[in-house]
Amino acid sequence: MVPHLTTALNGPILELERRFLNAAPEIERWLRGQWQEHTPPFYGSVDLRNAGFKLAPVDMNLFPGGFNNLNADFMPLCVQAAMTAIEKICPSAKSLLLIPENHTRNVFYLQNVAHLVNILRLTGLDVRLGSLLPEITEPTPVALPNGQSLLLEPLVRTRYRLGLKDFDPCAVLLNNDLSAGIPEILQNLNEQFVLPPLHAGWAVRRKSNHFAAYDEVADEFAKLVGIDPWQINPYFSVCSHVNFHERQGEECLAANVDAVLTLIREKYNEYGITETPYVVVKADAGTYGMGVMTAKSAEEVIGLNRKQRNKMSVIKEGLNVTQVIIQEGVHTFERVVKNDVAEVAEPVVYMIDRFVVGGFYRVHGGRGIDENLNAPGMHFEPLAFETSCCLPDCGQNPDAPPNRFYAYGVVARLAQLAASLELERTAPADE
Amino acid sequence: MVPHLTTALNGPILELERRFLNAAPEIERWLRGQWQEHTPPFYGSVDLRNAGFKLAPVDMNLFPGGFNNLNADFMPLCVQAAMTAIEKICPSAKSLLLIPENHTRNVFYLQNVAHLVNILRLTGLDVRLGSLLPEITEPTPVALPNGQSLLLEPLVRTRYRLGLKDFDPCAVLLNNDLSAGIPEILQNLNEQFVLPPLHAGWAVRRKSNHFAAYDEVADEFAKLVGIDPWQINPYFSVCSHVNFHERQGEECLAANVDAVLTLIREKYNEYGITETPYVVVKADAGTYGMGVMTAKSAEEVIGLNRKQRNKMSVIKEGLNVTQVIIQEGVHTFERVVKNDVAEVAEPVVYMIDRFVVGGFYRVHGGRGIDENLNAPGMHFEPLAFETSCCLPDCGQNPDAPPNRFYAYGVVARLAQLAASLELERTAPADE
Repeated sequence: MVPHLTTALNGPILELERRFLNAAPEIERWLRGQWQEHTPPFYGSVDLRNAGFKLAPVDMNLFPGGFNNLNADFMPLCVQAAMTAIEKICPSAKSLLLIPENHTRNVFYLQNVAHLVNILRLTGLDVRLGSLLPEITEPTPVALPNGQSLLLEPLVRTRYRLGLKDFDPCAVLLNNDLSAGIPEILQNLNEQFVLPPLHAGWAVRRKSNHFAAYDEVADEFAKLVGIDPWQINPYFSVCSHVNFHERQGEECLAANVDAVLTLIREKYNEYGITETPYVVVKADAGTYGMGVMTAKSAEEVIGLNRKQRNKMSVIKEGLNVTQVIIQEGVHTFERVVKNDVAEVAEPVVYMIDRFVVGGFYRVHGGRGIDENLNAPGMHFEPLAFETSCCLPDCGQNPDAPPNRFYAYGVVARLAQLAASLELERTAPADE
Repeated sequence: MVPHLTTALNGPILELERRFLNAAPEIERWLRGQWQEHTPPFYGSVDLRNAGFKLAPVDMNLFPGGFNNLNADFMPLCVQAAMTAIEKICPSAKSLLLIPENHTRNVFYLQNVAHLVNILRLTGLDVRLGSLLPEITEPTPVALPNGQSLLLEPLVRTRYRLGLKDFDPCAVLLNNDLSAGIPEILQNLNEQFVLPPLHAGWAVRRKSNHFAAYDEVADEFAKLVGIDPWQINPYFSVCSHVNFHERQGEECLAANVDAVLTLIREKYNEYGITETPYVVVKADAGTYGMGVMTAKSAEEVIGLNRKQRNKMSVIKEGLNVTQVIIQEGVHTFERVVKNDVAEVAEPVVYMIDRFVVGGFYRVHGGRGIDENLNAPGMHFEPLAFETSCCLPDCGQNPDAPPNRFYAYGVVARLAQLAASLELERTAPADE
């Protein structure tokens, strides 16, 4: 089952997909060249939005959860990609320490960890799980719904290395986004690979750095295939000194919302788009869909009530929001029809190293086309992609599923490339 | 449907599979290290034989046909592997010239070419077909059974480059095994990558070089996992000056058949195997199952009748056989039950670069367990593997399909590694 895109047959997206298809040799060659210059992150997932007139990434996760939502048929693809990634980093690797998030009660998340462990084990690595939780003081099995279990073990730190009891791994793979800061136990691991690097964690990372890098990638790519970069790139701007509790930075916010909306309106006029422009205001270091609101006018961000301010001011791990990104909202026109009801769907594409390894749709019944589908408490149903995003079929229409998913895979790889640039540029001098 | 291996549950193969499973981290790490030192051939297919007490490669093809017999589900795996291969060879590649075999009337072979073209196009390459056939003097479409067609074009040679009219490729990929010799038009292409290298063609290549390299690989690997190398390696020896027509070299042949049979007998005694040992006598440069006979005693190769001598003396392209390899015969105990009849099945594993990308069974009803299943005129039915050979499952028995196929994938990669060594060692000094 592939979601039906309501505007597929007549929207400009068809033209975009056609250009991607026709330019596939140039695109792949260009990407090959880029990966010679820039090292892709170990893994990543990209939230895409397909507005019919625009196909763009709206978020890039460098500590992807949700591997359990991928089509099981693509497992070999994940393993092959992971083999390439490991080979490059650490050819002599035999053992790997995986550090998951701390929410040991989230069954969905634990299933993701189990999948990740499987993928890595299938590359031939001894994989064990080290927990940052202080209460894990001895090996602790955690049951999974399928009857299997994960073993969380306490970390053992020596001067320059991290491991477990009787386990000295070659590399440390983080599946913990470090929202709460970089724990001391992870610092100065001079003798081991830490992947992704510590500055990829939300303690340091900023969405705005990512999208600044994406601007460059999108511009160069757009030149290559002869499109308006806006078709794959949402406008954004940043407010640096915001305190929602104390109503600081409201003017900056309002001015930027207005500026971004003006830019969108110009583009909508240029392309004859009749939708209402909107922006998404997000914590620049936020994740998990926390600290997010949408606005269709500058007024909406002025004079927020207490509830709204509370919602915007705190992100994961209870951190305060001080910097926000104002991003062009991209409508999602994709729908999955279920029980005769069309439900909003947002594609998420997964990558390991420079390879697309699958994806799924976040399908959410109760939400509008201009809402954030990754919201706290949101219940989404994952719908695994049936195609692999790497098999375009020139014999079919540009919007046939293999070709649509090829376009998704291309834009996702652009975001992965932007992440490479972002991590290069934000690397601390001593790393 | 996975073929049922009759001896599966009690034979020593179970022990072999268990060792592979348990040693998977060491195996994968060791292979990773080997691929740092040795460049895998662009692609290859390996004929394996599973005797229950032994699992060994009996032939390695560096110009694999039969890509059309692979499970279509593994197409993304092929594309990903081909991307890696191309990246390494020629990151800036945009165009590739594929040179197929000359038998343009073999529909099965043409379907293989079409699949190969698809895989390569999906990596983003412009792929075109150049024909060595002198009668192809202008672009000539060849129809395929599925309604598609291939376009064969005449080659255009300049001083150091090969291409087609208005097509100057970065690399030349051979799917032609050069049995007839290395055509002048392929020589001295100093400005292009030629893959696999010319000395991989049967004009130069010798099976005995391959199996000499495999001896080394198997010995080292056997040490790694703690098995007798014989369990994965057939004995062989060579007779260099044979002329079947003139009955030259009969003594050498008889002596070597006897010597190899003696070695096999010793091993059969050691392991309490009650099967009758046999050898396979093959042209050292032969392919397509031509120039092959089996023997259970030295007497069988002495005083061959005219028909037998004719059969043994000519291989593909009408070349004379002058050197033969006497290889330990490995019984195939795998059976596919079809219409209540158990038919002999031989696995063939396909690789691109260092990755296993699928495989299939040659299923042949009329043949015995000690016969060559790749014989001229042989009608085999391909049965695509349902698993990818890279997803062992430690939760299941060592002989459960995912684990059996993992073992197949490991042994196939050993043969691919041996091919790397073989090509290094047989490379002409100026290449």
